[in-house]
Amino acid sequence: MRIQVINPNTSIEMTRQIGEVARAAMSAGTEINAVCPAHGPESIESHVDEVLAGAAVLDRIAEGVAAGFDAHIIACFGDPALLAARELARGPVIGIAEAAMHAATLVATRFSIVTSLGRTAIQAEELLLRYGFERHCRRIRAVDLPVLELAEEDGCSAAEQIAKECRRARDEDAIGAIVLGCAGMGMHAAPLSAELGLPVIDGVGVAVRMAEALVGAGLFTSKHGDLAAPPPKHYTGRYAHWSAA
Amino acid sequence: MRIQVINPNTSIEMTRQIGEVARAAMSAGTEINAVCPAHGPESIESHVDEVLAGAAVLDRIAEGVAAGFDAHIIACFGDPALLAARELARGPVIGIAEAAMHAATLVATRFSIVTSLGRTAIQAEELLLRYGFERHCRRIRAVDLPVLELAEEDGCSAAEQIAKECRRARDEDAIGAIVLGCAGMGMHAAPLSAELGLPVIDGVGVAVRMAEALVGAGLFTSKHGDLAAPPPKHYTGRYAHWSAA
Amino acid sequence: MRIQVINPNTSIEMTRQIGEVARAAMSAGTEINAVCPAHGPESIESHVDEVLAGAAVLDRIAEGVAAGFDAHIIACFGDPALLAARELARGPVIGIAEAAMHAATLVATRFSIVTSLGRTAIQAEELLLRYGFERHCRRIRAVDLPVLELAEEDGCSAAEQIAKECRRARDEDAIGAIVLGCAGMGMHAAPLSAELGLPVIDGVGVAVRMAEALVGAGLFTSKHGDLAAPPPKHYTGRYAHWSAA
Amino acid sequence: MRIQVINPNTSIEMTRQIGEVARAAMSAGTEINAVCPAHGPESIESHVDEVLAGAAVLDRIAEGVAAGFDAHIIACFGDPALLAARELARGPVIGIAEAAMHAATLVATRFSIVTSLGRTAIQAEELLLRYGFERHCRRIRAVDLPVLELAEEDGCSAAEQIAKECRRARDEDAIGAIVLGCAGMGMHAAPLSAELGLPVIDGVGVAVRMAEALVGAGLFTSKHGDLAAPPPKHYTGRYAHWSAA
Amino acid sequence: MRIQVINPNTSIEMTRQIGEVARAAMSAGTEINAVCPAHGPESIESHVDEVLAGAAVLDRIAEGVAAGFDAHIIACFGDPALLAARELARGPVIGIAEAAMHAATLVATRFSIVTSLGRTAIQAEELLLRYGFERHCRRIRAVDLPVLELAEEDGCSAAEQIAKECRRARDEDAIGAIVLGCAGMGMHAAPLSAELGLPVIDGVGVAVRMAEALVGAGLFTSKHGDLAAPPPKHYTGRYAHWSAA
Amino acid sequence: MRIQVINPNTSIEMTRQIGEVARAAMSAGTEINAVCPAHGPESIESHVDEVLAGAAVLDRIAEGVAAGFDAHIIACFGDPALLAARELARGPVIGIAEAAMHAATLVATRFSIVTSLGRTAIQAEELLLRYGFERHCRRIRAVDLPVLELAEEDGCSAAEQIAKECRRARDEDAIGAIVLGCAGMGMHAAPLSAELGLPVIDGVGVAVRMAEALVGAGLFTSKHGDLAAPPPKHYTGRYAHWSAA
Repeated sequence: MRIQVINPNTSIEMTRQIGEVARAAMSAGTEINAVCPAHGPESIESHVDEVLAGAAVLDRIAEGVAAGFDAHIIACFGDPALLAARELARGPVIGIAEAAMHAATLVATRFSIVTSLGRTAIQAEELLLRYGFERHCRRIRAVDLPVLELAEEDGCSAAEQIAKECRRARDEDAIGAIVLGCAGMGMHAAPLSAELGLPVIDGVGVAVRMAEALVGAGLFTSKHGDLAAPPPKHYTGRYAHWSAA
Repeated sequence: MRIQVINPNTSIEMTRQIGEVARAAMSAGTEINAVCPAHGPESIESHVDEVLAGAAVLDRIAEGVAAGFDAHIIACFGDPALLAARELARGPVIGIAEAAMHAATLVATRFSIVTSLGRTAIQAEELLLRYGFERHCRRIRAVDLPVLELAEEDGCSAAEQIAKECRRARDEDAIGAIVLGCAGMGMHAAPLSAELGLPVIDGVGVAVRMAEALVGAGLFTSKHGDLAAPPPKHYTGRYAHWSAA
Repeated sequence: MRIQVINPNTSIEMTRQIGEVARAAMSAGTEINAVCPAHGPESIESHVDEVLAGAAVLDRIAEGVAAGFDAHIIACFGDPALLAARELARGPVIGIAEAAMHAATLVATRFSIVTSLGRTAIQAEELLLRYGFERHCRRIRAVDLPVLELAEEDGCSAAEQIAKECRRARDEDAIGAIVLGCAGMGMHAAPLSAELGLPVIDGVGVAVRMAEALVGAGLFTSKHGDLAAPPPKHYTGRYAHWSAA
Repeated sequence: MRIQVINPNTSIEMTRQIGEVARAAMSAGTEINAVCPAHGPESIESHVDEVLAGAAVLDRIAEGVAAGFDAHIIACFGDPALLAARELARGPVIGIAEAAMHAATLVATRFSIVTSLGRTAIQAEELLLRYGFERHCRRIRAVDLPVLELAEEDGCSAAEQIAKECRRARDEDAIGAIVLGCAGMGMHAAPLSAELGLPVIDGVGVAVRMAEALVGAGLFTSKHGDLAAPPPKHYTGRYAHWSAA
Repeated sequence: MRIQVINPNTSIEMTRQIGEVARAAMSAGTEINAVCPAHGPESIESHVDEVLAGAAVLDRIAEGVAAGFDAHIIACFGDPALLAARELARGPVIGIAEAAMHAATLVATRFSIVTSLGRTAIQAEELLLRYGFERHCRRIRAVDLPVLELAEEDGCSAAEQIAKECRRARDEDAIGAIVLGCAGMGMHAAPLSAELGLPVIDGVGVAVRMAEALVGAGLFTSKHGDLAAPPPKHYTGRYAHWSAA
Repeated sequence: MRIQVINPNTSIEMTRQIGEVARAAMSAGTEINAVCPAHGPESIESHVDEVLAGAAVLDRIAEGVAAGFDAHIIACFGDPALLAARELARGPVIGIAEAAMHAATLVATRFSIVTSLGRTAIQAEELLLRYGFERHCRRIRAVDLPVLELAEEDGCSAAEQIAKECRRARDEDAIGAIVLGCAGMGMHAAPLSAELGLPVIDGVGVAVRMAEALVGAGLFTSKHGDLAAPPPKHYTGRYAHWSAA
């Protein structure tokens, strides 16, 4: 099984890390191809970033579909361009926020999210509503650190702030699980789970396993209805390559 | 007052029409500048189209902000990139789906939507939920005609199909108002209102008036919290022009 | 354009103030007629007050319709008798809670309300639910001052308490805008917006502009369905004047 | 136990009928006093009617409280002025829509409503949402007969139309119970239950028993919080008698 | 009228207490039969307890139906096996959580719950959602005492902790009523109501009165649709006695 | 990896079939142990059946935990005793309704359910609400065939009726995927997916893969909070074996 993992931001280092986390999570026999777009922001911390990254992600999805990947993962907690990607692919496409939220409801009755910047909480709220988990999530907490700082490997202080906020979530929120709200927090999930004594869920790893599961179960993105391939048409300028041949 | 009206698709003809509808709706003293992006799809009929158009819309918003427009309208019924545009602007930014839905709840207790393609109903459903009107909308109906066909001025057959579906909505849906679900349907709103005897609402005209209203009331897009200007950073490739200077 | 602004309580002084706020907000060329009922409570601070005021408001609406006003505003934060008023009028009828809540969602993703008495929060909760904004409002805060005290012009202490609660909302509620929850707070909106650096929204001013916008866009209260004119019938006693001629 | 049953419209005949239905339902030892307001519409078929009737109902509630009734019933399916009445009374106050809807969820998982005029369905929808039963009610059906026609005792044709709509509800709506949506339908509940083989619920009878139950259980309307007695103040005109002495 | 009150746990002492509370609440002429299952946990403090107790409750319901009881009460705050019991009975079946929550919304606009263990809050949340009261309940509070300790008659310290949490609910939660979230708290309702000055509601007493009310109103559990008697079939092992004869 | 698959009814034949479907779906290296309880109904078609089966399922879960299974699947579409099972296990526990519903939202925006008996639709509705998918499911359809008939291998007529209802769902419901609402329909999923051209999802297969995914991702049922092991206590009668040693 070959899974394309797309980091929607353009940070090479973060892409490498996400690839590592994905490979650490995959089954034997799975192949992970971690890429990032050629275009867009180096981190995603605003609606603007998300929109631009979303457009750039679609090029990678199209390449991945052409290259015959079995599934695709969008590795940013805002799940940018998720439904658009599903229009392009027949294999499953999973967002990491989606994966982590789904998983949290399978191992706990209620969860909290610990994310990077407070301003991105609104995206998480929108996703909870879209996915149906607005009643399952007790609280969205932010450490208020920029995304790229979170992903710094020698980021002791980041790690400590994430841990502190997770501890608060465990002790104050009446929850059973914690969802980490940023692709750059992946390496913290396992140690935090161990330290805190409850599931601390990183979307990247779970998304890899869920993608494997859907493919293994013979499931595919529906091409009946509103996720069918987009009607072919003329595109101009930067997007001219999307025009029907 | 100067209002920038952005048609998110790249159809020059449709942009012209939207500009006309906007000008027909504006107050004396308002100036309308109707533009479309340099990049993207000629019509928006899928999630892919919406994502690409959304990214291209942001360039126009940035230009409009730099040019000192008092408000901005995103004239596609999916309201692409609306929150991102709000991050960029201090003047109000209004989506036409948003404007039409809000207005419908001010003149009726329940409404239906008549849109172009059935596959775009899911976007309308998402917007209803995001805006809070999922209980106010009884039904989303589609005429199943491509967007550009709707906008053809000699489109008698399109006009007739829209009228037919609006009549059905009036007679079967227990509603008081109809929202037209496509920027290309704007010229039909007034004649249909007259013929059907209830408000048939086009978002373009209403959005112009709502933008005037917000500006006139001294309101502006909040820069406190999650709609503050995006954190400056490095962007690459097609989006390199977004990098902090 | 002629707009009837109805203060549902019987305080002459508060009616005068509301008229001033409305006139300060209106477009050039608009004419404001601010009135209050001949009957009812001098302030609205309970369900009882709201019911009695609502019945009295309808007389003013009927007069306003007969006098050919283009639109009507109900200037009490509980929006008393709003749907009943819409049955009587063909021009738009706007409640100030409705106007302020709608506007808040157009300039921010989330808002809080700062109202007069804690006991009136339940009405605001009901309106949020009715209008669809229960997910957009983070919190309802009360300064716990009687309505008429709020409206006292030399009400320094009232002004300061409102300001204090607004500051708390800004700093603690993760919001982008504040809605002032009482018609008597109108004069505080602009200075508070300036001081706090986010939109502080008074419903009176916004309602005037929204009414202008709907009329300008050719919209009218639907007479198809449940807002059609009430079936004519016999009324007795205090309400005998409502009987069909 | 003495229960005040208020028919909010001014029809003497309908008041008599409601009293009869109430007495047929009461426990031994209960005393029913059925009254209607001195003021207002002869039937309630619009928001205007409801607002006027609501104001008039409050006079009767105040009289009933002064006369020491143990509980109060508002016998119109829109439950007009219910919360205002609760501010005035310490004994329980029950609306008949409320009573019927509550009861329906206790004897079935889902129910439908059969009401008088289609235009009043919107009030039922609002009540379902307010009471929390929007997911329990499958459908609101209307026989489209005026309220006073429903209540005519020799109204064979009305009875037959109600029965027909109830049969449809039973056969098409996947429900277990039917709520009759008008105080004038009370005499049909028992025969329809027998004929249709499922609970057909009239709010008047159930409200009487529920009021007895609450009083019997030692419960009273909360005077802590937003249902406390209204702050005393000055009222003018028709409502001058509400002024604090 | 004969009402069967089933304490779903196997504590004889608690069954006796529940019976006493029920008898204290019943009307003259009612007969209460308080029983507990022969099988299952001595207290219900987990999902496991609830599932086992639920299965055991059904035996008692079947016996009660055979013995001709007019109504049945399930006297545990999780309302275990409520819909299953309704399939077996034609008389009304009331859960005490259900009864208390319904009653709370009839005497106040908002309520809080004070329950035994924090871990059982999730069941209360599920019930609020099922019954439609998720918006009416402000907060679920726990005293974190085991159920059987709550029910100890000389349980001064339990009584004091319950009282303390109820006081906090009254003072901090913006509510009008408190629901006691455990059948073992019944004896505290009346004194706490008196002390705190708002309705403190015990489900046992209210359920008895509601059952009387439904029976008195001629209502019965619907046998049309999904609460019809279960299809007869073969059961094995411990449940062999459920097989169709 | 060893997964325990529990068919909650006592049909040996159906257990065998479920085991086959599970094994057809599992990854290489997984071991499936398909069992059914020693006690309970031969099929689950009512709330009573579900309650009894739920209690019996817990014995198997406890055995499975003692035997060291890595994960547990509850293979009945009502997901009986799911949260109770999670209290007992540290490995993931998945219900097949849960698995199928989650999967459907990952491959389509909207889905319908095709279930066995109409009377079980209410359980599916409750689960949709509990899991958060009430907005994702358009419609619940029933073929109105008993569960055991569905599972008959030579059940041509059952297969044809399921297919017919699935075709209707595809053509009328505006959906992208179909969830099969009974463990006995598992063998129809693949052929129906192929024939209908959209994902037709059986919960058994998906649950196996999801269980593998969660275990593979290092996730476990939270033991912090409300899914912690039940407090030890005394159980009597049939359930005496649950008593703390």
